[in-house]
Formats: sequence, structure tokens, C-alpha cells
Amino acid sequence: MTSQLKVNGFRGAAVKAGIKYEGRLDLGLIVSDTPAVAAAVFTRNVVKAAPVLEGMKQMTQPDARISAVVVNSGNANACTGRQGIEDYHAVCKEAARLLDVPESQVVFSSTGVIGEPLPVQRFMAALPEAVSNLDAEGILAVSDAILTTDTVRKTAVAEVELDGRPVTLAGMAKGAGMIGPDMGPPQATMLSFIMTDAAVEPAWWQDVLSAGTEQSFNRILVDGDTSTNDTVYALANGFAGNKPVDEGHSGADALRRALFSVMRDLALQIVRDGEGATKCVAVTVRGASSPEDAEKVARTIAESPLVKTALFGEDPNWGRIFAAAGRAGVSFDPEAVTLSIGDVIIAEDGRGKGKDAEADAARIMSGAEFEITLEIGPGGGQATVYTSDLSDEYVHINADYRT
Amino acid sequence: MTSQLKVNGFRGAAVKAGIKYEGRLDLGLIVSDTPAVAAAVFTRNVVKAAPVLEGMKQMTQPDARISAVVVNSGNANACTGRQGIEDYHAVCKEAARLLDVPESQVVFSSTGVIGEPLPVQRFMAALPEAVSNLDAEGILAVSDAILTTDTVRKTAVAEVELDGRPVTLAGMAKGAGMIGPDMGPPQATMLSFIMTDAAVEPAWWQDVLSAGTEQSFNRILVDGDTSTNDTVYALANGFAGNKPVDEGHSGADALRRALFSVMRDLALQIVRDGEGATKCVAVTVRGASSPEDAEKVARTIAESPLVKTALFGEDPNWGRIFAAAGRAGVSFDPEAVTLSIGDVIIAEDGRGKGKDAEADAARIMSGAEFEITLEIGPGGGQATVYTSDLSDEYVHINADYRT
Repeated sequence: MTSQLKVNGFRGAAVKAGIKYEGRLDLGLIVSDTPAVAAAVFTRNVVKAAPVLEGMKQMTQPDARISAVVVNSGNANACTGRQGIEDYHAVCKEAARLLDVPESQVVFSSTGVIGEPLPVQRFMAALPEAVSNLDAEGILAVSDAILTTDTVRKTAVAEVELDGRPVTLAGMAKGAGMIGPDMGPPQATMLSFIMTDAAVEPAWWQDVLSAGTEQSFNRILVDGDTSTNDTVYALANGFAGNKPVDEGHSGADALRRALFSVMRDLALQIVRDGEGATKCVAVTVRGASSPEDAEKVARTIAESPLVKTALFGEDPNWGRIFAAAGRAGVSFDPEAVTLSIGDVIIAEDGRGKGKDAEADAARIMSGAEFEITLEIGPGGGQATVYTSDLSDEYVHINADYRT
Repeated sequence: MTSQLKVNGFRGAAVKAGIKYEGRLDLGLIVSDTPAVAAAVFTRNVVKAAPVLEGMKQMTQPDARISAVVVNSGNANACTGRQGIEDYHAVCKEAARLLDVPESQVVFSSTGVIGEPLPVQRFMAALPEAVSNLDAEGILAVSDAILTTDTVRKTAVAEVELDGRPVTLAGMAKGAGMIGPDMGPPQATMLSFIMTDAAVEPAWWQDVLSAGTEQSFNRILVDGDTSTNDTVYALANGFAGNKPVDEGHSGADALRRALFSVMRDLALQIVRDGEGATKCVAVTVRGASSPEDAEKVARTIAESPLVKTALFGEDPNWGRIFAAAGRAGVSFDPEAVTLSIGDVIIAEDGRGKGKDAEADAARIMSGAEFEITLEIGPGGGQATVYTSDLSDEYVHINADYRT
């Protein structure tokens, strides 16, 4: 966790617009002082919020550049029909006017309740204050304004050198429930905004963001519910003055690694802050015939209510893990399966290793973070999915969310 | 609910064998006084318990007939390897010896904790008492002995006339958690045993049981976790003296309807008694391009933790239902979707109908049973799935189950 979130050429501000609740930051603005090369990934849910539908259109324009990101919490602007689209553009247009940039360079992300009309007048009333407060120090406040059921701010920073120049990557994310992201390139209610002063080639930047998403946000789940609003924007404004990075650049690997580390760090912060979560568990499946099969099995285990309640109960109930694996739609020999919790082998050749192993595993499960590893055969396919436990607090949060 | 569970030519008994807990009925025996025509469906989970693996083998023998079903609660005999198979046969063999029937005519079902060795000696010690207690009145006691986290006994009875003779169907079921049955013919931890004194043709009986399973047990879910042990046995002993029923028999439709009604009744009793459940909700999807697509969407809604917690909260949060539908892997136009709760249209053309409709829907949701209907397009595909809500009690039950 950092208390700093500064990148050259980026400014931010957050204000209290009263979008849903009074007295909290709920409207954020991130501005790049030059139009930034932008990459994005959006939810693959068939039901897409207006900010996703419209953001996708903007990001697929040739030479799309982003100067500003408006973002609010409290209202998702999802399932709002044509009015939602109009509201999106009204807000973008006003932000563009106040910032004196083309409307095409303004994107707008939303998170909150689905199906309620966006209170556009509150945006109109609050945007001037946001614009006048813009400041290099203000980005951190945006990372607070985007939170909903989150209990902590989520930020990550990395630094690399490109062409001898220091480059910063800084990212923020929100998300605690409705977490089962499935995002693809221009086409996750997690939101994440990543800023860098690196100069990058646009196509390469999109490819790297998409690849990173598969290994980070698309591999986490709290409840497995894929949101209508999941979005990641990654802005690169070139202020560092390096030669634009593509695969041929000597710093490509370093920049990719830095981006991946920021994304993975943010993704894990989402799982740790999952609604009602007390555990962050890495579920790894090995020995599948393909990475896809491994991911299917890992995901089925990670989503199983019986497994997730056992994690909450710190109960090494390996039978539930086996049963979940067996319904994943992947064929394997149940008699050849080995299961470890941390470094304790708790079942081997499809059978339990007994009470001592279970006691050792229970000790590992009493910690806040641990790994479950299931070997299902001799294949080379492997995948890891990160999940939280399922607690009574999750139920309380979500049975009462709108009231 | 019936207090009677008697069918001509069937006897039952239940005893306290101390399989997991002291002082409760946990070992049941159902005996047909002549070898019964038997149909069965078993879990499609890749990880199958010993009683499933061995029962499947017995049921695929030509001219398989069943004289006795042994059943226990407290131990699933799953993930127990070769020992589990041997234990299965040891119990069947002893029951066959005591009953003086061929071992091939004895099947044995188990439900309970996965991965613990079956305490065979307790079976051996208790079986003689069970056999000596066999009685036409004793079948009802078996329906108590099979319960685990269930809070109520589940039975259903139907009567039909075949060839002028009265015929009875009587069924029992258990199941409250790990409920997401996916069963196929010889090939649900729900267990169900159905008895009838009808005479039936074996192939027709299997076909009817399989078709009935698709419309009953395979359409319910509590947590969506498909068990390693799910099993339905349907025994028809012919005591009624009718001409054996196949599709050509004038009573085929009546018998099929009676069987379906028993199976559907038992399936709904499982949902109502779902772990921690306070609601039994029918989720119907209409207008899909195929019944399979409709089922996929219905199942995704019915399994969504966010939808299930909203059901518990009696919150007509239609946005969560839309979001779940949108991630089902089925394509539809989100702007053409209509959602009803009971007879209240709460969203139309992809948008909410406002606060009055929500208040009306909330009143319906305060009841214990209601319907959610989602129309996703103009197609003819339709499917209904029955689900429970997700309460803090579900978490308590499953975080503490083994301790």
C-alpha cells in the first residue's frame, strides 16, 4: 500500500457529488496533460452498462487518445436504456468543455446500483469543483472516490527505466462484490485505472493490457458474478520521453513485467477486500491436459459455496474440493489426484492422508493467505485462480445492499 | 407430507448403528418381497463414491433385479479407494446372507462426510436388528434414517389404476446441501428411493425415470455443488398384478404422470429444506432460442450468490438478475428483456418499471414461495430451475459441518 500515487503529467481530483450518499467522495476525475495512448478491457457480460457500451466505441476509434477519465461510485448507469447513453454523453461533454479537450478524449466509468437513472444534474453541479481542484496529489483521492462496498483503498505503483529514463506506473482499483471478472479487449464491478508516463505504441499497449488481464483480474473471484460494468483503462502519456515501446524495444519486457505486477497486485487487493472475506486463497490446478482444463477445474473449486464456507470455517474438508473438481466438466482419474494445502499433502491417490495431515492443514488455513494445489494427472496444463472465503458477513452485505 | 409410506410387497426398517453420531437412526433397509424391476440414475460427477460406482455396475447387468436397498447416513463412502469398494461389497454380502437373496440383488447407498473409511463393523453389528425389524410400517423410519443436514423428512405418495387394479407409488428423498444434481441413467448428495407395486417393463421404467429426473431432481439447486453420491433407485415389484407397463400399455401415461409427480414433489421438498433456506423460488426463462439456452440462463441466475442473497433479503434487485443472465454464455438482446416476480412486471425492455413495481415485487418476495420469470427474446426455448435463497444460516451450517 502506498500513500503516493503520482505520475508525471497526470492530475486528479475527487469531490462529494451526493450521487447516492451524502458526505462521501463519489466523483473522481483523472486528467492527462497531453492526450494519452489508451488501452482498455471491458466486461464480456451480455448485459453491458452504458459506460461500457460507449467506452468500447470510443476505444475502437482509430488513434483513440484519452485526456480525461470521469468516474463515479453509487450508480452503475446499467440497464438504463437510451437515457443512460445520453447521460453518459452529457457528462463527457461537460467535462470536455470544462477541460477544453475534445469530447472523444473523455471516457466515463460508473459503479454502483444497477437500474437507476444517473443523477446527471449532480454531476453537472460537481464537475466544476473537480476541475478546479485538479492536482498531481489528487489522484489518490480518486482511488477513494471509486470505492463502494470496499473497505480499503487499492493502489499499486511500479518503476522501471526505459531508454535511461525513469518511468512510473501507478494503478488504482475498486471491487469487493460482483467479482468474477471476464474481460476482453475492447469489448470486468471492478474498475481499474492505470497511469504511466511511459511512451508506448498503442497496439502493443493494448496487447500487453489484454494479456495482463487474463493473468490478473480475470483470475480472481469473490462471488463469481461477472459485472455489467467491469472496466480497466490504462493510460500512457509519454511524459517520460522514452522511445515509444513496442515488442522490439529493449525495455519491453521490463515495462510488461511492471504492468503485470501492478495489475496482479491490484487484483489480489480486490480478493483480500472481497465482501465479508477473511481469506485470500490461491487455487492452483496442475497436471491437466490443457491450461484451459486446469482453469475450468480451478474456477469450479474457487466458486463452490461448499468449498468457500469450508475456507471460512478453516476446515480442511478435501472431499468438498474433490467433489467440486469432479463437476467441472473435465475428465480425470479421481484415483490419481493429489491435494495440498500449503505444503501439506492432505490427500493422495484420491484418498485422505489422515487426521495428522488434516490438523497440519487446518493450521495453515488459520492464516489469512494460503495456497490449495490440486494435481489431477500427468498433463502439462496448469492454472491459478484467486478466491475469497464465503462468510455470514457476505450474506449480510448483500441481503441488505440496496436498503 | 404423508405419515404413511406403504406399498404392497415392500418392507422396511431403520436402526441406530452409530455410524457417525450416537442415538439417531442412520442405517435403513428396504426390502421387496420379490426381486423388483429396478431403474436408477447416478451422479455424473467425475468423482463418484464407491456406492455409485458399484451400483452402476449392478444396474447395467442384463435383467438386473433388486431385492434390497441398504442405505446409511453419516458417511458417504466417497474418495475411499479400493477399501471403499470392498466395504460396499462386505455390507451387501452380509445383507444378502441375512435376507437369503443373491448379493447381486442388494444395492447400498451412502450419504455423509466424504473421505472417511466406512465403519463396516458397525454395519455388521446393526444389520441383523434391521432385518429382524422389517415391516410394512418400517419404510417411514428409513425416510428418517437417510437424513443428514435435512430438518424434515421428505416423502411423497401417488396412486393410479392399471388394468383395473389400484397401484401405489411411494417415494422418499434426502438432501439439503451439496444440491446441484446432475444425474444420468446408469451412469444427484441427494438420495431418493421410489417404490411401486406396479408391474413394469424394465427398459420403459428406466426411460421414464431418466426423463423424470431431468424435470425434477436435475432442475433443483441449493448451492449448485453436484455430489459424489447422488442416486435415485426406483423399484417396481409387480405385486399389483397388472400387465407389465410399457409405452403401449393404456396406463403408461397415468403411471408416468404419477412417477413424475412423486419425483417433482420430492425435489421441491429438498429445495424447501435447503441448508439455511427461507425461500423456494422457481426461476423460469422463456423466449430463448432453445430449451438448453433457457436452462443455462435459468441455472446461472439460480446459482448466483448475489441473486440468492437478494432473495434472502427480499430485495427485488432485478439488476443482479439481469447481470447473472448476461454471464450465462447465451446471447440475447438486453434491451428486449422482461422480468416478472410473481405477476408483477418489474423490468421491461431492459429497464426498471420504477419504485411502485419494486414495492409490489417486494411484497411477493416476502412469501416463502414465488416465481421469477425472465423473457429474453422471441424464441420458443423455455426452462424452469428451482432454487433456494442464500442465508447466513447456510454459511454457519457449512463452515461448521464436520466439527
